[in-house]
Amino acid sequence: VNFFYGLDQEDEMDLFKRLEEIEPADAGWAAKARDRVDHLAKLVGSMGQLEDYYVRLCGIQRTMKPDMTQRAIVVLSADHGVVAEGVSPCDPVVTLKQTLNFARGVTGVCALAKQAGARVIPVDIGVAAEVCSDQIIHRKIRYGTANMAEGPAMTREEAIRSIEVGIEIALMAVSEGSTVLGTGEMGIGNTTPSAAMLSVFSQVAPQEVTGIGSNAPEAMVLHKIDVIERAIELNRPNPQDPIDVLSKVGGLEIGGMAGVMIGGAMSQTPVIVDGFISSVAALLAVRLKPEVLDYLFPSHKSREKGAALASALLGFDPPLDLQMRLGEGTGAALMFNVLESAVFMSNEMITCEEAEIAVI
Amino acid sequence: VNFFYGLDQEDEMDLFKRLEEIEPADAGWAAKARDRVDHLAKLVGSMGQLEDYYVRLCGIQRTMKPDMTQRAIVVLSADHGVVAEGVSPCDPVVTLKQTLNFARGVTGVCALAKQAGARVIPVDIGVAAEVCSDQIIHRKIRYGTANMAEGPAMTREEAIRSIEVGIEIALMAVSEGSTVLGTGEMGIGNTTPSAAMLSVFSQVAPQEVTGIGSNAPEAMVLHKIDVIERAIELNRPNPQDPIDVLSKVGGLEIGGMAGVMIGGAMSQTPVIVDGFISSVAALLAVRLKPEVLDYLFPSHKSREKGAALASALLGFDPPLDLQMRLGEGTGAALMFNVLESAVFMSNEMITCEEAEIAVI
Repeated sequence: VNFFYGLDQEDEMDLFKRLEEIEPADAGWAAKARDRVDHLAKLVGSMGQLEDYYVRLCGIQRTMKPDMTQRAIVVLSADHGVVAEGVSPCDPVVTLKQTLNFARGVTGVCALAKQAGARVIPVDIGVAAEVCSDQIIHRKIRYGTANMAEGPAMTREEAIRSIEVGIEIALMAVSEGSTVLGTGEMGIGNTTPSAAMLSVFSQVAPQEVTGIGSNAPEAMVLHKIDVIERAIELNRPNPQDPIDVLSKVGGLEIGGMAGVMIGGAMSQTPVIVDGFISSVAALLAVRLKPEVLDYLFPSHKSREKGAALASALLGFDPPLDLQMRLGEGTGAALMFNVLESAVFMSNEMITCEEAEIAVI
Repeated sequence: VNFFYGLDQEDEMDLFKRLEEIEPADAGWAAKARDRVDHLAKLVGSMGQLEDYYVRLCGIQRTMKPDMTQRAIVVLSADHGVVAEGVSPCDPVVTLKQTLNFARGVTGVCALAKQAGARVIPVDIGVAAEVCSDQIIHRKIRYGTANMAEGPAMTREEAIRSIEVGIEIALMAVSEGSTVLGTGEMGIGNTTPSAAMLSVFSQVAPQEVTGIGSNAPEAMVLHKIDVIERAIELNRPNPQDPIDVLSKVGGLEIGGMAGVMIGGAMSQTPVIVDGFISSVAALLAVRLKPEVLDYLFPSHKSREKGAALASALLGFDPPLDLQMRLGEGTGAALMFNVLESAVFMSNEMITCEEAEIAVI
């Protein structure tokens, strides 16, 4: 697949063909794993979500000893034309600056990734400026989206391409050895398209899913709601057509993150979903192919309004609640050690039989 | 201090003298840390609890670069005479068996500690049998408590001694290099004294704080509530006298865990509190000396009934919610990496000024 020239209908068919090839997690391995978990020397169910995580990881990696050691967070950066409407208190140039700071390893996600021993893979998928760094993967689809309050954020072809870029990066990371991925993003203004997409997918009014983003004051949030309402009314995205939603009121990094999740599912690799924006990307991915959900793990309960609804729609119950709302993949970074703890539970514990303890 | 011969009034005075020497966390270091956090290249407050953890750790260790690398979980084992009342579906011999399994490194807390690179320090503070292992610290105060439904669980002297043992172990771990501690326990039946102590401290009825413990069926839980009510009525513990509460309706490992927390405060070392039983021990420690709270960190929201109340009384908002209810220190083990992430946040991120981004 050539990602850098215009895609046409054939390319869209190509994406859907690739989606069709995704298999669900393996129920046989999961059942074997559940049996082991239920016989470990502890009360049945007493290790809660760790038990489920282990079972799911076995089903995903088709093994009793999932590998959570080779960690990578893909951080996709893009700009948003809708910032022209005044929906963010941040200067949009921060997208570029922080993207360069990902390359330098000095942002929030870089710090937490370092603690977790995870690689950060920064990708320019649509920053509205030249990004000069050889530490960044360059896959710019366009210089930021168009202003969705005046028309579609991007073309259908660009939307598909953003997903393909995410797939490509995930498959590259896996081919280079990653055994577990996380998603992150940087894009000033991106809670606006995220809230718009969530509103369309859920058919819940924008005011119910629109939050403060980068500490927007109340009046700005009210204006943001108004902008989202206008964008939806003007573009009329079709809730049954996820690509249509992404192209009309979405963002390039949101498509890219959905692609990373799809690429994870294609390569039977677990993908950790970060907070609000990542969760909306997960909704997009799952609406394109429901089996992708088998490969996704929640991380933290983002404080951004709308995050709880997005989680609920995914059936997620994020285990971390640190009142974080930074994005970048910071929540996902904290989750690597938790998932690995689930693996250690099975690898290091003995069974009730070995411990000479009755199962309760 | 000699821990192995009967303590008298002088020993009690000795404990209270040691408590008096505990200093609060350092407000100066905390303020300096807060200033740094507020200038990091992120939205103010957007890293949520990680920001607060970092600030508190700086105040505790009196540094801008707290050390979270040398980790130890103290796991105290003891038996409970009240099991004679039929309050647990578990065979009490499990306390002994699992204590030996701590030494072998094959239990739940051992598995999660291994993931976190933490040392597990198993201590026999009151197992109702000989514990034959040189991998265990032997500080048996008595062969399990007496049945609190028939009289005090232990003497006042034994209660004080259990706290002193915890202090000793914490100070030993710190002198051997530990920079952060966690608490854990093993004691079949110990949700019963924990619920009793919580009921006395909070003046909330036993039925509101008594849960299923080791998967007790409903009828057994009702009986357990009845036993707790009887024990409180018979022994009349004085809520204003924490030692009285511990001795009459408590447990040796609960006193020991409170001691570990006090020892942490004495040595300016952060201590991670595990779930329900640890939280009750934390209440005990904080009622003995409120400044101990400065040194304590919550970990997970235990599913055991009563855990939420105990957390609330401590002002805790545990960041991990994995529906765990195993005990042993499993929740505390998961928290080491989270606390270290808070330190990495400060150590690895640049400031807004360095990133050429305006503070928002």
